[in-house]
Amino acid sequence: MILDWKRFLLPYEQAVEELKVKFKSIRSEYRKMGQYSPIEFVTGRVKAMSSIVEKSERRNIPLDRIEEMEDIAGIRIMCQLVDDIEKVVSLIRDRDGKDLKIVYEKDYIENIKESGYRSYHIIVSYRVQTAIGEKEILAEIQVRTLAMNFWATIEHSLNYKFNEQIPEDIKMRLKNSAEAAFLLDKEMSEIKDEIIDSQGMFQQRSSI
Amino acid sequence: MILDWKRFLLPYEQAVEELKVKFKSIRSEYRKMGQYSPIEFVTGRVKAMSSIVEKSERRNIPLDRIEEMEDIAGIRIMCQLVDDIEKVVSLIRDRDGKDLKIVYEKDYIENIKESGYRSYHIIVSYRVQTAIGEKEILAEIQVRTLAMNFWATIEHSLNYKFNEQIPEDIKMRLKNSAEAAFLLDKEMSEIKDEIIDSQGMFQQRSSI
Amino acid sequence: MILDWKRFLLPYEQAVEELKVKFKSIRSEYRKMGQYSPIEFVTGRVKAMSSIVEKSERRNIPLDRIEEMEDIAGIRIMCQLVDDIEKVVSLIRDRDGKDLKIVYEKDYIENIKESGYRSYHIIVSYRVQTAIGEKEILAEIQVRTLAMNFWATIEHSLNYKFNEQIPEDIKMRLKNSAEAAFLLDKEMSEIKDEIIDSQGMFQQRSSI
Amino acid sequence: MILDWKRFLLPYEQAVEELKVKFKSIRSEYRKMGQYSPIEFVTGRVKAMSSIVEKSERRNIPLDRIEEMEDIAGIRIMCQLVDDIEKVVSLIRDRDGKDLKIVYEKDYIENIKESGYRSYHIIVSYRVQTAIGEKEILAEIQVRTLAMNFWATIEHSLNYKFNEQIPEDIKMRLKNSAEAAFLLDKEMSEIKDEIIDSQGMFQQRSSI
Repeated sequence: MILDWKRFLLPYEQAVEELKVKFKSIRSEYRKMGQYSPIEFVTGRVKAMSSIVEKSERRNIPLDRIEEMEDIAGIRIMCQLVDDIEKVVSLIRDRDGKDLKIVYEKDYIENIKESGYRSYHIIVSYRVQTAIGEKEILAEIQVRTLAMNFWATIEHSLNYKFNEQIPEDIKMRLKNSAEAAFLLDKEMSEIKDEIIDSQGMFQQRSSI
Repeated sequence: MILDWKRFLLPYEQAVEELKVKFKSIRSEYRKMGQYSPIEFVTGRVKAMSSIVEKSERRNIPLDRIEEMEDIAGIRIMCQLVDDIEKVVSLIRDRDGKDLKIVYEKDYIENIKESGYRSYHIIVSYRVQTAIGEKEILAEIQVRTLAMNFWATIEHSLNYKFNEQIPEDIKMRLKNSAEAAFLLDKEMSEIKDEIIDSQGMFQQRSSI
Repeated sequence: MILDWKRFLLPYEQAVEELKVKFKSIRSEYRKMGQYSPIEFVTGRVKAMSSIVEKSERRNIPLDRIEEMEDIAGIRIMCQLVDDIEKVVSLIRDRDGKDLKIVYEKDYIENIKESGYRSYHIIVSYRVQTAIGEKEILAEIQVRTLAMNFWATIEHSLNYKFNEQIPEDIKMRLKNSAEAAFLLDKEMSEIKDEIIDSQGMFQQRSSI
Repeated sequence: MILDWKRFLLPYEQAVEELKVKFKSIRSEYRKMGQYSPIEFVTGRVKAMSSIVEKSERRNIPLDRIEEMEDIAGIRIMCQLVDDIEKVVSLIRDRDGKDLKIVYEKDYIENIKESGYRSYHIIVSYRVQTAIGEKEILAEIQVRTLAMNFWATIEHSLNYKFNEQIPEDIKMRLKNSAEAAFLLDKEMSEIKDEIIDSQGMFQQRSSI
């Protein structure tokens, strides 16, 4: 089967543009209201054609069922603190049945990947109106902290650079560093909570 | 009534961002498929607070019914040729009941405004998901040719600069120039059609 | 000679991005100061590889001298009124020897092209710092009114669509419509001047 | 002295736009050449008027010497790995005397701030052409890893939220977490180096 890739990718590109605008708006809305935003920044991308083909071969997905691939359209939402992830996930759940449909969720924060990878994934179905008509596509929304993103960015870049041939002992070190990044995340959340507590104390005292 | 303007304008700002992305995508989709795009470019803006207040006073709209104002969110779609307007309008009609609802249409191309103004307006109702919940707002989509836009841009800028105090004889000249711009538009469309005809002839002849 | 096109086009792409930001900033600066901007909007593009090759063949430019082509990087500045063109040109001349160097100017408003085309072109030399070092490239800045742009956009699109095979009688009609567009431009400028005069009169009278 | 803030901030806003485009281009240039980019992403901002006033009071800078403030225009460049910082710094040094001038450098990676803050700062002088003429302004370029940025973002947000009144014991915990983030950075760099070594071994063996 010969795929007209340009045509095929059109609705995915549009979906990514629309979803990026939608989640970026939420951030600027919090800022305009002078409130803390659970979203720190948002990125998005359409999977490169070569990566789609490579994945379809690896997973034995025939090209005429390629639309079942869940991450052709990908949105990444970065949060400052671990607690923010929950807030963002619940913002997305609130939209379920409105401008998007949640297909399923994958909690790689509770169920850490073998590699050490942590993130919360939500697979959504999203409807776009294109020049060639309406189309419903799948998109993967990844929600993660800045620390999880720091680790995942480097791990991805190492894997890519070294063609997924990372020796076992180094894999172990990467995994340990993922653990360290997560401990850092937890420490930052705790610090925030303690500051809130001590602030409360401080304000009580100063109002005597 | 005291309005929290920042909060009030949030969903309008988001709607404009989303609608701009949606119509710009259509243009890039035509281009990617190597086809002529009926959309040449797209702009959008949220009406300034001062203009909203001024209009509400002029039209006697109380501030608690200000959401009935149709052009707080405004999208402008520019076309090369008059015929393209129809195609764009029908693309928007195709979306009715999908990602937007058409409230009504105002055809200022058939029914030219007293000033000479021409454009096709579609008032839509559009649903946005904001940080403070779901909201359905009104937006005005103006569809016009580059020539109509040329005229309207200058007329608007003159009116603004001279505080709507344009003398009668000059109003008449502006109106005549709107007419001239429209004749130019028609001439360009005709030239296109003749080229298509002569091309047809040329291709028939050369294939003998 | 085999050209590494990606590498070759890099500095042009960067120059277009930088110049677009620079001229767009000027517009937003006038707006922020509450003043009329002689710049209405700005676009830019790098010539497609296929068009560069096609032009180099047509003009007999060997590929190792392709850097002499003046319009690989192109910036287009649109003005509302004919008088604004002069202001924009003088803004660019003021930068000569600063962030750009003027190589030469081509006045297609005084010396209209055979086709009817009008615009003011400035060829500049612009220095960019890229990942692969410093590079000085040529760029063409076109300054035109909205009406000139309306005509040029349609003429270009017709020429492209019909493979430059526009019959003589239709060429004549296109030329006439360019003339009509220019008369419209002049009429708009005159209307503006008359409004300024009559405003002056009005203000004198009302201050008695 | 009354400052016309809009006018005052214009060249800073333009400088930030230009510098963002320039450093983002470098990233996309590496990507287009299929090479690893030492720049992961770039952000920029002009300091809010209120923060400028607050800082000028805190530091006793009179408003007529406010241009000496070095961080009114701020650019932030994020790198994946600690080693990349050096590469980015040397890319900036290569431009010294070309499109920017280096005023001085502050190495908060060698000389960590009391709070635990790490980043490499370069103060540059940058010349912009605005609608109101040429102007040379100061800008601060911060170069840091994703991990340093993770820590600094949260520390800044905590300081802001709690009005700089963070108790001593919590300050100590924040400092420790900065240390942990830096160890993580070092571990990631080492992992990369080991992978390169083991890859080298692997390739030698497979080429026997």
